[in-house]
Amino acid sequence: MLTIDKIKKAEHLLKGIIRKTDLIYASGFSKNGDIYLKAENLQKTGSFKVRGAYVKIAALTHEQKEKGIIACSAGNHAQGVALSAQKNKIKSVIFIPSTAPISKIEATKNYGSEIRLVDGVYDDAYNEAVKYQKETGAEFIHPFDDIEVIAGQGTIALEILDQLPEVEAVVVPIGGGGLISGIAYTIKTLKPECKVYGVQAAGAGSMYYSIEQNKRTELPAVHTFADGTAVKMPGEKTFEICKKYVDKIVTVTDDEIATAILSLMEKQKLVAEGAGALSVAAVMFNKLPVEGKKTVCIVSGGNIDVNILSRVINRGLLKSGRIADLTIEMLDKPGQLKEVARIIADLGANVIRVRHNQGGENTDINDCYLKISMETRNAEHLSEIKNALREAGYRLTNEK
Amino acid sequence: MLTIDKIKKAEHLLKGIIRKTDLIYASGFSKNGDIYLKAENLQKTGSFKVRGAYVKIAALTHEQKEKGIIACSAGNHAQGVALSAQKNKIKSVIFIPSTAPISKIEATKNYGSEIRLVDGVYDDAYNEAVKYQKETGAEFIHPFDDIEVIAGQGTIALEILDQLPEVEAVVVPIGGGGLISGIAYTIKTLKPECKVYGVQAAGAGSMYYSIEQNKRTELPAVHTFADGTAVKMPGEKTFEICKKYVDKIVTVTDDEIATAILSLMEKQKLVAEGAGALSVAAVMFNKLPVEGKKTVCIVSGGNIDVNILSRVINRGLLKSGRIADLTIEMLDKPGQLKEVARIIADLGANVIRVRHNQGGENTDINDCYLKISMETRNAEHLSEIKNALREAGYRLTNEK
Repeated sequence: MLTIDKIKKAEHLLKGIIRKTDLIYASGFSKNGDIYLKAENLQKTGSFKVRGAYVKIAALTHEQKEKGIIACSAGNHAQGVALSAQKNKIKSVIFIPSTAPISKIEATKNYGSEIRLVDGVYDDAYNEAVKYQKETGAEFIHPFDDIEVIAGQGTIALEILDQLPEVEAVVVPIGGGGLISGIAYTIKTLKPECKVYGVQAAGAGSMYYSIEQNKRTELPAVHTFADGTAVKMPGEKTFEICKKYVDKIVTVTDDEIATAILSLMEKQKLVAEGAGALSVAAVMFNKLPVEGKKTVCIVSGGNIDVNILSRVINRGLLKSGRIADLTIEMLDKPGQLKEVARIIADLGANVIRVRHNQGGENTDINDCYLKISMETRNAEHLSEIKNALREAGYRLTNEK
Repeated sequence: MLTIDKIKKAEHLLKGIIRKTDLIYASGFSKNGDIYLKAENLQKTGSFKVRGAYVKIAALTHEQKEKGIIACSAGNHAQGVALSAQKNKIKSVIFIPSTAPISKIEATKNYGSEIRLVDGVYDDAYNEAVKYQKETGAEFIHPFDDIEVIAGQGTIALEILDQLPEVEAVVVPIGGGGLISGIAYTIKTLKPECKVYGVQAAGAGSMYYSIEQNKRTELPAVHTFADGTAVKMPGEKTFEICKKYVDKIVTVTDDEIATAILSLMEKQKLVAEGAGALSVAAVMFNKLPVEGKKTVCIVSGGNIDVNILSRVINRGLLKSGRIADLTIEMLDKPGQLKEVARIIADLGANVIRVRHNQGGENTDINDCYLKISMETRNAEHLSEIKNALREAGYRLTNEK
């Protein structure tokens, strides 16, 4: 059973093992209230997961430790378990689907774990892990539906109450529900008037639907780029705790999450992964009644693949008019490219890619088109450039 | 004159105004010693500049405050002065060259400063500011060559000595020298056995050359994307302090800085600007004798334009083989595109852009070429794909 006693013991256990992460006032997000970020992306292993994993592993008996531990994960849980096993000096075997990003596999290996790469997706790796568990009797470390794990995550709430005693709301991402269970139980027990809100990705809203229907519900599929929260069904224990202690759960779209990731980088200089940006996305897009409140958003992790980050940035730049792709139709005669380049340069945009081709499906035989990618200051600046081109007689097509 | 007394007073003054930023152990950089990051990119306004600016402004007389203050800057100093003026409730006029990124202009405006955009570059804005100063008698806040400003930056060293008393070396970026002057004086006075190292961008090494030649030297031009350190000549005061207290100054290239920025994002989840990554670049590329030492790198700021960040990421991905552009020559007959796509997919790479064109300067009339951009896992993975394509009879050109 979860008790404050257990969570205080977990806190004591974690001293010197994990970082008491910074609570950062986020002026860039504080237009309608005071937003603080609990930066668990700056936690060891890049996410909060190490808290629960360490507490669970430390609580094992001597016999259990001798047999070693197993985990199945493509991401943060794998690293949390691996580091915790290393610190406890016990053997760990981590099953990882072969489709996982190589950076995460390498990070887990670096903590000294034995890695079993399993062809396929998470479920395939999970099946292998279960088989191995039966053969060896090693202890399987569940990523969320375990009281010790939940107690470990609850230590974040103790830190928040210490860092900002006047906190009025805490916003927490939800995957399987381990993080929010620990936080909600702790906050509601020690400071019941403080709200606890949960956020899920719209494409992976298993806890949201389960609470709505008042029974644990398995989603047929999950689809979100907040891969750390892509869980089909909440845990038994976490479902019960959320039902009792969480004030409200909302969902955010992948586009909203991407915008939050970009804003966190620009305004707060923090790299968050999809799951890590859920709480900020919910506040940015006004999904929660936190106006005028002192609100803490948990930024749960920062392990995002740089390829993905690059796409998030480019998409954000396109959406806010700071990168633009223009397709310009023009007569195929000398001097046109020069003229277009002049118009764009005069208005202060920076051309980064040009393609100049004859013929396009919808053009006359005499026409050709010019594709220009450029850096612009914002949407107004882009409009200005488009208007100048139109005034000079050019026709723009396929704008995006 | 700089004294510890002054720096302690500055620290007291700054309480509640600035953040005591986190000192973060950076396991990802700690292969040959213990590297800690002093995260001034998480400081208010996104850089350390607010420390010195606030201390300077608070020290003005009542009469000086009445007349208001002036600064000239396209970046961090502007924001530091603007916030400090706001907190001191005095008028500030900031001269900014019109070529500055709009995000920095907006940020400065948001702190309540009056902005004067001046056509041209820094020197043009500076001339306007001097003119305005003569007309109004307002106080000009120098970005680095001022004892109060230096004392403000020195507070960082007091925090480091408190957060890591056993520190053995501190690595500091240098532009005009204000930051390192404050830090070096404080460290060398309170803990003389601790080393203080400076780092400059190779294209803006004015302090490096000045110390080498033992006299303040003006560079004919500066060129670096660490724009926060693009200063042609060190200050008089900062030059004297550096000469006396800094153990060694080294330079790093723009490519090394870009690699450090990418590593800071991937490994430590921190966004740093070019100047902010100088110290980490120097350690990553073994420019300093810090092996086996407890070393603090000052990450001085995080105000990097997202367009630039996007380029840094893409360049880093290309260099490490995680994005690749291939140009493949093939016979112009059916089924070839499918075949190439199959080979790439079977090896687990992710195609992000395809161009298929007939004719190229060096191809036969019958040939056509295929340009493919794809995400790969690393340089080995890319080689594997190239080899498989070659074995299937395809010729690769223009590789990069």
